[in-house]
Amino acid sequence: MSVKTNIVGWETITNFVIDAFKGYGIPEEDAKICADVLLESDKRGIESHGVNRFKPIYLDRIKAGIQNPITNFEVIKETATTAVVDGHDGMGQVIGYKAMSMAIEKAKKFGMGMVVARNSTHYGIAGYYTTMASKSGCIGITGTNARPSIAPTFGVENMLGTNPLTFGMPTDEEFPFVLDCATSITQRGRIEYYARVNKDTPAGMVVGRDGSAQTDSVQILNDLNTGNAALAPLGGIGEELAGYKGYGYATVVEILSAALQQGNFLRALSGIGENGEKVPFHLGHFFIAIDTEAFMGLEAFKKTCGDILRDLRGSVKAPGEDRIFTAGEKEYLVWQERKDSGVPINDAVQKELIAIRNDLGLTKYQFPFE
Amino acid sequence: MSVKTNIVGWETITNFVIDAFKGYGIPEEDAKICADVLLESDKRGIESHGVNRFKPIYLDRIKAGIQNPITNFEVIKETATTAVVDGHDGMGQVIGYKAMSMAIEKAKKFGMGMVVARNSTHYGIAGYYTTMASKSGCIGITGTNARPSIAPTFGVENMLGTNPLTFGMPTDEEFPFVLDCATSITQRGRIEYYARVNKDTPAGMVVGRDGSAQTDSVQILNDLNTGNAALAPLGGIGEELAGYKGYGYATVVEILSAALQQGNFLRALSGIGENGEKVPFHLGHFFIAIDTEAFMGLEAFKKTCGDILRDLRGSVKAPGEDRIFTAGEKEYLVWQERKDSGVPINDAVQKELIAIRNDLGLTKYQFPFE
Repeated sequence: MSVKTNIVGWETITNFVIDAFKGYGIPEEDAKICADVLLESDKRGIESHGVNRFKPIYLDRIKAGIQNPITNFEVIKETATTAVVDGHDGMGQVIGYKAMSMAIEKAKKFGMGMVVARNSTHYGIAGYYTTMASKSGCIGITGTNARPSIAPTFGVENMLGTNPLTFGMPTDEEFPFVLDCATSITQRGRIEYYARVNKDTPAGMVVGRDGSAQTDSVQILNDLNTGNAALAPLGGIGEELAGYKGYGYATVVEILSAALQQGNFLRALSGIGENGEKVPFHLGHFFIAIDTEAFMGLEAFKKTCGDILRDLRGSVKAPGEDRIFTAGEKEYLVWQERKDSGVPINDAVQKELIAIRNDLGLTKYQFPFE
Repeated sequence: MSVKTNIVGWETITNFVIDAFKGYGIPEEDAKICADVLLESDKRGIESHGVNRFKPIYLDRIKAGIQNPITNFEVIKETATTAVVDGHDGMGQVIGYKAMSMAIEKAKKFGMGMVVARNSTHYGIAGYYTTMASKSGCIGITGTNARPSIAPTFGVENMLGTNPLTFGMPTDEEFPFVLDCATSITQRGRIEYYARVNKDTPAGMVVGRDGSAQTDSVQILNDLNTGNAALAPLGGIGEELAGYKGYGYATVVEILSAALQQGNFLRALSGIGENGEKVPFHLGHFFIAIDTEAFMGLEAFKKTCGDILRDLRGSVKAPGEDRIFTAGEKEYLVWQERKDSGVPINDAVQKELIAIRNDLGLTKYQFPFE
């Protein structure tokens, strides 16, 4: 007799996600990529981008006809080190995987590679692609534009996506350096959490139409939907604590996600058409790979990179803090905790998974929470 | 009869700075580069890196023997798209100029170029080099490590430099997009300003040894010297407002400034030797150029980039704010104000310039403030 648990083993969830993606018309090879990107997020503990997103961000969009399950990855232009691709509203993860693979291949041949994509869709965690690069001995850099949500400094209108600017580096440690973060202070998911636990949102994260900090979490969630509130860039509202820097980095990502590839940007990424209907997001991404072997070599790079990270972790802690982390370390700790068990699935997502299974007739799957 | 003024015309200050650099042993061609980088800072209104720095950061360091006026720019390794150079403690501006020139040349041939330098010295405003790239139709990216001053998240020890992560983009406007900023919230110069005008430093910019925000500006300046205070990364102290992101970007710059080129990092960049003596800083920099012509072309890039910037500036302003800026715009406005007059020189720097002139016997220069 099996014990009920909300933890689903990796093999089960992986096979299920692949089969469900296939059930939505995604070819097997692509479904494997999509599943790997999706679940890597859960492996790292980034709940906002894992199975929680499976239905609303991917399956529902395929069903709504604003995202193609079959990905036509068209190379529009290519040089030795660069390429422009059009994703034709296919699966963002497949576009991302293929684009970063090309960038790495170019870097391995010519030292550097950069591939930019247009007409793509949500590509999952940006850090997946930089880890592809760091596993190959390359520095990886990526970013993507997204649905408008950040207001510029001195502005109150949601204009820029949360636009991650993400870096990955090979090191001599058990896990790579991965800085995978939005250029806003926070994201909607965090405010949903504050609302759930009845807490105010810390002042500075969200700006209202009156230009001041909003802190009522429930009100914020409503106002973000109507455009009456916007996320503040990293550094906060106004200039005092240097919000113009976060705004600047968000702008860099917006430019690199649209200008090189001649794709859509800013307000055009709302996903809402002229008559209020859902339309494709037409997102843009960029992927850079830099081969450490084209400089002083991979082993030397990894050692120095590791030394820097170890020195940082070993530096003087603030009273009451017993640990300094480096980027990617917390995610690695989550994986250590989860690797032998599986992914915890919350009540709402349990219901979604059961419905998907029943709907697709994937009767061979029985979940441990049933 | 001439009227006394603290504004020195561009021709006078340029020729004077070149001649003074030459008087310190810098070859003419290099002196012109150093002067151009130094004064570009004043042209953009970045007072912290212009003539205010002429004596203490460059001339005094040459005199102290920790920086060579003659720059031996040695290429250690080179591939089609990449190079590693050793600056042998020469002039950082010359190293930066030559390194970015190489990166641009490689980008023009192969689509992308990246040159990294070790054993360099203070290279002035990072934005100078990205503007070299954007003037050439390339995207420019640069960064440098620096004397330790930022504490990691949950730490209180000054470990990372203010490590700018700087981007430049060509646009179809009068001025390029230049995001030239430290990955700390602020820099020492800003706190000196607060102290001068008798203002507290806003909470969050500086962390004391007790882990809390320091706000007494005079005390901070003292504590930064003794290591009893450190700058907070962009995003602030702790994790609440995402200080780990600024800390992460500062770490990216530290890695890219040391690991590819096998140079010094973190505590080794203090400029202080074992016996308290001044020693060379042995800084590292990186320079990336990406040719827009290797993608959808320069004109298309400039147009989309300009459209993004115009849309941002035209978005809804916070009540009471009449203008939204994009990165590089305020600097351009300063230049519009100053281009026909010159650079304002404060009292302390006036005395320095007079002393330098007298010391070097550059008798042909008479300043308008005398």
